[in-house]
Amino acid sequence: MKIGIFDSGIGGLTVLKELLSAIPSADYVYLGDTARTPYGTKCQDTVIRYSIQCADFLLSNKIDLLVVACNTASSLALDALKAHINLPVFGTIESACGLALQHSDKKNIAVIGTEATVKSGAYSRNLHSTSNKVSVFEKACPLFVPLVEQGMFEGEIVDKIIALYLEEIKELSVDTLILGCTHYPLLKRSITSYLGNGVAVVECSKALAGEVQVSYPLNNSVNHSGQRSFYVTDGVDRFKHLAGIFLNRRDIEVNLVEL
Amino acid sequence: MKIGIFDSGIGGLTVLKELLSAIPSADYVYLGDTARTPYGTKCQDTVIRYSIQCADFLLSNKIDLLVVACNTASSLALDALKAHINLPVFGTIESACGLALQHSDKKNIAVIGTEATVKSGAYSRNLHSTSNKVSVFEKACPLFVPLVEQGMFEGEIVDKIIALYLEEIKELSVDTLILGCTHYPLLKRSITSYLGNGVAVVECSKALAGEVQVSYPLNNSVNHSGQRSFYVTDGVDRFKHLAGIFLNRRDIEVNLVEL
Repeated sequence: MKIGIFDSGIGGLTVLKELLSAIPSADYVYLGDTARTPYGTKCQDTVIRYSIQCADFLLSNKIDLLVVACNTASSLALDALKAHINLPVFGTIESACGLALQHSDKKNIAVIGTEATVKSGAYSRNLHSTSNKVSVFEKACPLFVPLVEQGMFEGEIVDKIIALYLEEIKELSVDTLILGCTHYPLLKRSITSYLGNGVAVVECSKALAGEVQVSYPLNNSVNHSGQRSFYVTDGVDRFKHLAGIFLNRRDIEVNLVEL
Repeated sequence: MKIGIFDSGIGGLTVLKELLSAIPSADYVYLGDTARTPYGTKCQDTVIRYSIQCADFLLSNKIDLLVVACNTASSLALDALKAHINLPVFGTIESACGLALQHSDKKNIAVIGTEATVKSGAYSRNLHSTSNKVSVFEKACPLFVPLVEQGMFEGEIVDKIIALYLEEIKELSVDTLILGCTHYPLLKRSITSYLGNGVAVVECSKALAGEVQVSYPLNNSVNHSGQRSFYVTDGVDRFKHLAGIFLNRRDIEVNLVEL
């Protein structure tokens, strides 16, 4: 089985990492649209157009299923992608919402993400459609992606920006927080430190990998060394460096592609 | 005379504002490549490809000269643009460097910009080619653009990020600082407050408008109400809102274009 994954850039590597751990025997093709990153500040039409171009590239690599490892694309382009291609398509929203509802006793849930993700209301819609008792608070955190891209995961500036965005969430005493952007797990320690241990933090990457694993159970005991291919639309060396940190591997070959 | 201007997004409006003030009787076509912004984190090949697409769109609008109102594109793509089109092309580097050398008594100059601009060394090369006595220190400030795009121009977080990036520059006791990114003038007050009044701050937008004005002196006394056209590749409403703030005008019509 060959799994195609795309993201606007490097964030989707947190999803790939979980998938490699859950389904190591599959083949993987990862595409990071680094030439047009970020998606999270852009409009639906643009995100749909770029997402379909990413999906078409992965389809040309003969994938068996598509994982949208970008919350913005999952929020704004999932329906368009499902209509466009004739393969199973997995996004980040549904599985993260399911996991959050499992975790949450009080059904008092907060979601943080990019401006586009929050504006779409996709998380809120999904949570409300699954549970009629849930209270949802969504908040855009537009400086989190630039912080992560700069390798700033902790320290005074990070803490102050976290406080700026999460102050309301702290006051609302939610019991569960969904990290609705694949970059945010890298800030998890600082976020948890600010919110305290009383808040369960749900990472969409783990939830998504779990959903794919349940839907496509592979015999991982078979000693198949799955192939991993990496493509980006800009900055091969930068991606190689960051992918090494994300995946803890130095032997990654990354290819440049024009979409 | 019709002047074509492009930038990766909204930053170039600081250049347009200065041009409108210097040469009000010209016609202007502004293109913001907001679907692919920012350019400053991307590689030279990508920046050249996008810049040429922007220039071709403006050429199709029958412009008489091209202003590259983006420091990253000016640093990485100016030679390619000059080779590609048969019109006068103005970038941000040369005029800003000329103005900085005029201001600087000690010839001890710092330049701040995006990662791509600083990595290109374009400012440093230009300053050294003009003066053999100059000492240049360049520093990338990658969080400045996201701050400005979020409308964060002052306050504790802004001050801490300014201190993070400009601490070395303060210690070097430079007498002139070039704001080598069209977003940075919006942080000028906070930057000046950190560095003190002993440092002259040069804005590339003013320098560039001055250079165009000297090269193409128009009779501004003629009461010609120049046309202003605005195009973006994403986010018409967002651009309209921000352009209103940048230009202090509410009556702007913005058109969506696909490159």
